[in-house]
Amino acid sequence: MGTGGAPSLDGLGAALLASGTELTTVAMRRYSPAESGSLFQLLVDHGIRILPNTAGCFTARDAVMTAELAREALETDWLKLEVIADEQTLLPDAVELVDATEQLVNRGFKVFAYTNDDPVLALRLENLGATAVMPLGAPIGTGLGILNPHNIELIVSRASVPVVLDAGIGTASDAALAMELGCDAVLLATAVTRAQNPALMGEAFKHAVIAGRLAKAAGRIPRREHALASSAMEGRAEFL
Amino acid sequence: MGTGGAPSLDGLGAALLASGTELTTVAMRRYSPAESGSLFQLLVDHGIRILPNTAGCFTARDAVMTAELAREALETDWLKLEVIADEQTLLPDAVELVDATEQLVNRGFKVFAYTNDDPVLALRLENLGATAVMPLGAPIGTGLGILNPHNIELIVSRASVPVVLDAGIGTASDAALAMELGCDAVLLATAVTRAQNPALMGEAFKHAVIAGRLAKAAGRIPRREHALASSAMEGRAEFL
Amino acid sequence: MGTGGAPSLDGLGAALLASGTELTTVAMRRYSPAESGSLFQLLVDHGIRILPNTAGCFTARDAVMTAELAREALETDWLKLEVIADEQTLLPDAVELVDATEQLVNRGFKVFAYTNDDPVLALRLENLGATAVMPLGAPIGTGLGILNPHNIELIVSRASVPVVLDAGIGTASDAALAMELGCDAVLLATAVTRAQNPALMGEAFKHAVIAGRLAKAAGRIPRREHALASSAMEGRAEFL
Amino acid sequence: MGTGGAPSLDGLGAALLASGTELTTVAMRRYSPAESGSLFQLLVDHGIRILPNTAGCFTARDAVMTAELAREALETDWLKLEVIADEQTLLPDAVELVDATEQLVNRGFKVFAYTNDDPVLALRLENLGATAVMPLGAPIGTGLGILNPHNIELIVSRASVPVVLDAGIGTASDAALAMELGCDAVLLATAVTRAQNPALMGEAFKHAVIAGRLAKAAGRIPRREHALASSAMEGRAEFL
Repeated sequence: MGTGGAPSLDGLGAALLASGTELTTVAMRRYSPAESGSLFQLLVDHGIRILPNTAGCFTARDAVMTAELAREALETDWLKLEVIADEQTLLPDAVELVDATEQLVNRGFKVFAYTNDDPVLALRLENLGATAVMPLGAPIGTGLGILNPHNIELIVSRASVPVVLDAGIGTASDAALAMELGCDAVLLATAVTRAQNPALMGEAFKHAVIAGRLAKAAGRIPRREHALASSAMEGRAEFL
Repeated sequence: MGTGGAPSLDGLGAALLASGTELTTVAMRRYSPAESGSLFQLLVDHGIRILPNTAGCFTARDAVMTAELAREALETDWLKLEVIADEQTLLPDAVELVDATEQLVNRGFKVFAYTNDDPVLALRLENLGATAVMPLGAPIGTGLGILNPHNIELIVSRASVPVVLDAGIGTASDAALAMELGCDAVLLATAVTRAQNPALMGEAFKHAVIAGRLAKAAGRIPRREHALASSAMEGRAEFL
Repeated sequence: MGTGGAPSLDGLGAALLASGTELTTVAMRRYSPAESGSLFQLLVDHGIRILPNTAGCFTARDAVMTAELAREALETDWLKLEVIADEQTLLPDAVELVDATEQLVNRGFKVFAYTNDDPVLALRLENLGATAVMPLGAPIGTGLGILNPHNIELIVSRASVPVVLDAGIGTASDAALAMELGCDAVLLATAVTRAQNPALMGEAFKHAVIAGRLAKAAGRIPRREHALASSAMEGRAEFL
Repeated sequence: MGTGGAPSLDGLGAALLASGTELTTVAMRRYSPAESGSLFQLLVDHGIRILPNTAGCFTARDAVMTAELAREALETDWLKLEVIADEQTLLPDAVELVDATEQLVNRGFKVFAYTNDDPVLALRLENLGATAVMPLGAPIGTGLGILNPHNIELIVSRASVPVVLDAGIGTASDAALAMELGCDAVLLATAVTRAQNPALMGEAFKHAVIAGRLAKAAGRIPRREHALASSAMEGRAEFL
């Protein structure tokens, strides 16, 4: 779960715990040990791993600088790499992202690359050494869900690294769908922090992720164009 | 959870328990105490309520007769009323359904009416005294999910009785969506009994229903056409 | 094309001509020969057939009375039968519709039955003698398009009478889709009369209906999950 | 209209004429003046402009070489730039595409860039000097239509150069939708050449493009969640 958009630290803490998350992202641009000390401690206490991110960076150069600061401040080489194109769409910039990934991998970072839903770009990021790819479902904060499930499925089918759906999720069923499409995890922020009841929504997502993961493993029935006459119609001897 | 389509009684029992269901339906047409004794006992042991259904009935007359047999055999006046139009679509027949509901309510049955997704018909069934309305998401056994969420939402918004989504569900995210649309419960059969691993899928649905119910209660964020610039962009002093 | 919702008679006339429609509906409840004389004449002049409708009727009894008035006033036994359930949803009432269709067919009317998208009801109306069935794509005036293409396709696949998509259409592509699903025609009102430029939108729909009809006849390519390597990749000798 | 996938030259010619196209693409990799002479003449005779493409190129280097060959052979500096990532998905490679666009613009080509549906990449291609951007609706040859209308709308809203929807279109309503989303044109190949009746399908698309363009200009009605009580309900004195 991400930490963006939370109106208060108290609510954020409760939502993080309710969601059962194992990892949270923190924007380095706004990181202030003084202000954020209590939340930081809460994360440590509950074994929630911190993934610093480069939110607000528009170029590979900015992202690399921010990453180095993060590594020093938080003593981790894990990094959620965000390189966005502009403030209106907040969409990733493919060219800068490729450049930044290459540099950061060379500098020894474990790069979790926030990307669009282009299957070609996702595979390229993996080939450059990204630790995980994080395609968006829809633009950040829209809550539109997964606009193009076809692409997410294609990304998953070709990936050897974990695929984490990031951005766009609005409600629990979106997260379940992401897992059913084969994603390994879901990263949430606004959908939880700006829900009317963030703690309750955090819990909803916890169950949704479990539901989707189990359903994927359980092997769903195929979609059929026509009704399936139940066995009762076919005269088989059975309970129903 | 329904019991239709299960290839074996053993698997069915495991799936029923995994799903955490509180109620199961049993087709009277195929009910045989001798064959089904062990499953019946399992239901009793775990406090799972039995809802006999009129699967295979094409007319109000048939349905009423079947209902009376069910009441006698299973000692319950609860009834899932199914009156279908034909064996190809397995879709409910609105006219016969209305007729049957009226008769059965007058005979003292608690009618759970399996209906199409027409908001007008759902309200009429309630006004005739149905205990619950059970609109379909898609034709039985298709696994197509909820083809017309708009109608389900409309049914819920006008109902005073419980709304249970019945038929069409294929996987966990469909069930979560049903709950998010405001349904009170979901009835499953094929999606669990014909999954590759029914017990695992039963558990998936248990979490999906919880997830959808919590998400509905938690109040989801609104859908937005455009990205929501995170707070970091707006210069607010905060953790992220 | 219908005539509902037009802010002025002048614009309505232009839109009717631009759409190339062969038939228009007129609500009997508001029919006033004095006021509507000029439009009526325009219809006659251009060979556009008038189909009186029973808009505003809530019961079979009302609809039959209105139909008889229409037959007398407009000297036609063609009738668009609308029996709606309430003023909020404007959705058809299945039970009253069946009743009214039966009565009107017996009285010699050619009944064009406005219905929901329930395939069972559509077939029942046909079996009762309806001349055409007119399923909705979405509730009247919503412009939501065809909410459940699966049902429309099912209605078409089983119908022997013409199927006319009525209500819900918002723009040209919706009408093209209706024809591709196999509908024989499309009935429009709000989508044209309340467009910013009704005459232009009328012309748009004319082309959309032609496009959809031709595409249906031409036999579309199948949908494929994966890209189709173009012939160039397979080494066939050809122009491309 | 493109020329890919046509089983015969005769059918292709008929389809091209029926579609009313003003421009067609030709793959340079397979271009053979001897074989293709008659079709080439047909294009010239009907004033259909030829847009050579770089189909089959996987790198910027290949694409630039192919482009130079095309300019020499066909005496045009117009070029449809395709740089795909692999033969399985046939999806564009963002990085190579950016590189190739830059080089080709510098060499004086008018670049029509075939791209994915990423709004950031589309804008970057325009900023590099592309004459037009050609986002895909879905992978080549799938006929899945426009998988992410939200992205296409975003691309259009920010573009100053023409936007031509390319790839993925399956049938007429898809093309109408593309125009309604604001595209300036649609490029077709498989959807026409592999339809059961290519000439008829070509004509269908001609009307669909007109329909969508007119509908966009005419200003569609807004989508509404609830039925719009027709004027008849509001007591206004009018024809209907």
